Amino acid sequence: MKPKSHIVNLPVYQPGKPIEDVKRELGLDEVIKLASNENPYGASPKAKEAILGELENISIYPDGGAVELTADLASFLGVNTNQIIFGCGSDEIIALLTRAFFVPGDETIMADQTFSVYKSNADIEGAVSIEVPLVNGTHDLDAMLAKVNDRTKIIWVCNPNNPTGTILPEAELTAFLDKVPAHVMVVLDEAYCEYVTDPSYPNSIPYLAKYPNVVILRTFSKIYGLASLRIGYGIGQPEVIKLINQVREPFNTTRVAQAAAKAALKDQEYIDSCRTANSNGIVQLQGEFDRLGLEYFPAHGNFIMVDVRKPAGEIFEALLRKGVIIRAGHHKYPTHIRVTVGSQEQNKAFIHALEQVLKEQEALVQ
Amino acid sequence: MKPKSHIVNLPVYQPGKPIEDVKRELGLDEVIKLASNENPYGASPKAKEAILGELENISIYPDGGAVELTADLASFLGVNTNQIIFGCGSDEIIALLTRAFFVPGDETIMADQTFSVYKSNADIEGAVSIEVPLVNGTHDLDAMLAKVNDRTKIIWVCNPNNPTGTILPEAELTAFLDKVPAHVMVVLDEAYCEYVTDPSYPNSIPYLAKYPNVVILRTFSKIYGLASLRIGYGIGQPEVIKLINQVREPFNTTRVAQAAAKAALKDQEYIDSCRTANSNGIVQLQGEFDRLGLEYFPAHGNFIMVDVRKPAGEIFEALLRKGVIIRAGHHKYPTHIRVTVGSQEQNKAFIHALEQVLKEQEALVQ
Repeated sequence: MKPKSHIVNLPVYQPGKPIEDVKRELGLDEVIKLASNENPYGASPKAKEAILGELENISIYPDGGAVELTADLASFLGVNTNQIIFGCGSDEIIALLTRAFFVPGDETIMADQTFSVYKSNADIEGAVSIEVPLVNGTHDLDAMLAKVNDRTKIIWVCNPNNPTGTILPEAELTAFLDKVPAHVMVVLDEAYCEYVTDPSYPNSIPYLAKYPNVVILRTFSKIYGLASLRIGYGIGQPEVIKLINQVREPFNTTRVAQAAAKAALKDQEYIDSCRTANSNGIVQLQGEFDRLGLEYFPAHGNFIMVDVRKPAGEIFEALLRKGVIIRAGHHKYPTHIRVTVGSQEQNKAFIHALEQVLKEQEALVQ
Repeated sequence: MKPKSHIVNLPVYQPGKPIEDVKRELGLDEVIKLASNENPYGASPKAKEAILGELENISIYPDGGAVELTADLASFLGVNTNQIIFGCGSDEIIALLTRAFFVPGDETIMADQTFSVYKSNADIEGAVSIEVPLVNGTHDLDAMLAKVNDRTKIIWVCNPNNPTGTILPEAELTAFLDKVPAHVMVVLDEAYCEYVTDPSYPNSIPYLAKYPNVVILRTFSKIYGLASLRIGYGIGQPEVIKLINQVREPFNTTRVAQAAAKAALKDQEYIDSCRTANSNGIVQLQGEFDRLGLEYFPAHGNFIMVDVRKPAGEIFEALLRKGVIIRAGHHKYPTHIRVTVGSQEQNKAFIHALEQVLKEQEALVQ
């Protein structure tokens, strides 16, 4: 039983600790998770109602083509229904793209600190990941372009970038797309786009008409608050969407996910309120970081990457003991942590814990 | 943008018509779907309660490792937790197995009329499917064995076989496994195993200890009535499960699916009642087929394949117009339809419609 030679030594995903385990193991009553960029306000109440409406159909296969949701989303975005594909999170669209396009030896270009799923899927397909250094936490599009050759299949552009939270402004992205050769697909991963309020941030939908090699990824896991239901989507040219559909399993999203996404999409008032609350949360956290003299990357999603000037793993552990889960372990930024923008109360609790942890660390040094 | 050459001409999955569309298009008030082998009695009420319990966590990512469900299932099956992997339906485990193991030119052996997802995934990976004729609707294990060579990676054995419903008895399967060379994986797809009451049907779990090349697939979509939630699983040697995990997306099953599956697994009383009702339904349908003089394969799952002695596509269309959706289009059996064993009432309605349709067809001929 011989697997593909290039998958033998891939890392196995290590599941994160459930909040319940952290509580039990550390004897804590209250644990705040600001680690996975979930929406602290949850999903629209209308999404929850929609889930209840599906309980009677729980034993019936979902609509594999997500026809109703596709129609609603196409109308909302101003694209055709054959330009949309749904996945078990946008993660699955990444996996399907690589499964449809990569053969061993192909090259793919991405930032050296970005969403890890691009590289893990390239690895599975035996494609070579060319990782281009971020500059000031931001994609260096000229340097990425310089790496393009005949073997290049896909360039991944995460905008806002996870984990740094930086964005690429429209002018810069357009200039880049003008220069990318037609044989190279550009995947714009916009998982956090709905949070962005900066006017320089591009509306990428019109790119689809101008650049047939662009595929956009978005999700219902972030601002829409449906992370547990696993539903994201890709938008692209019908020909590309058809190819991805050819490698998709027939029933890859659930009935409850489709119903909840449909309802959540309709409740844009709720999304607006989440965006505003998040912007306020960014101001709150940045103000506190300024007070503490900590530097951070300009945040445009619902998370901030801040330099705690200590080994991030130690700060992670110390915060965990105080009941706050954040994200560390970013190889390029060993003293940065990534924290989700929570509710005002959660942010306050996090800052309180961080301040204590940093003081304790100072005391240890002295 | 060049996709893998061998995926260019793969068929795109065509989603089935939702019941609502059939009702609207044909002006029908009542439509019975006996096409997808869903549980006509639905899921355990305890599974539905468990879904309600997850509504407050809808915005929180699921436990990617499905730790609690894995522990419960391992204990239920009598295997270790590192022998289990969950997928978005057992379909996804099939996809992951092929993604982990196949390279172009590999060979894979399956019946010539079986679950189509084996071949579609082999096609995606560029593996060659060797399709071995069923004999009397049953896997011909000797003929399959005769096709094994150095390039063979996986043999797929669907037991009960979809769409014929036949089973392989323990003695035959064991004799086969004794002869399969160690380099060949045998995937036992047991999506319908919980329905089988025939004492010759093997309990395959002990095979795992004896044959390290066996992987078993099972699902919560069938007797457990959770098809809409997309959750199935694979059971195998820890080394094989680890390899499949290496190509799995981190969050491939939803929070509600995990919770519902956990609750459904606990309610074995409900499963027993579904099994009994299904056995009664088989007797009911077979009695009616006997009365109508129609031949059928011995049914062991929750579906029956019956020879209507007319082009199955025509019978499918005629039944649809009477509000009954069944399955046709089985290339090896052009005059057979596959019908799910429904509730007593649904079975009665189906037989009534079928009898009318067959009479109308006779009238047309005369």
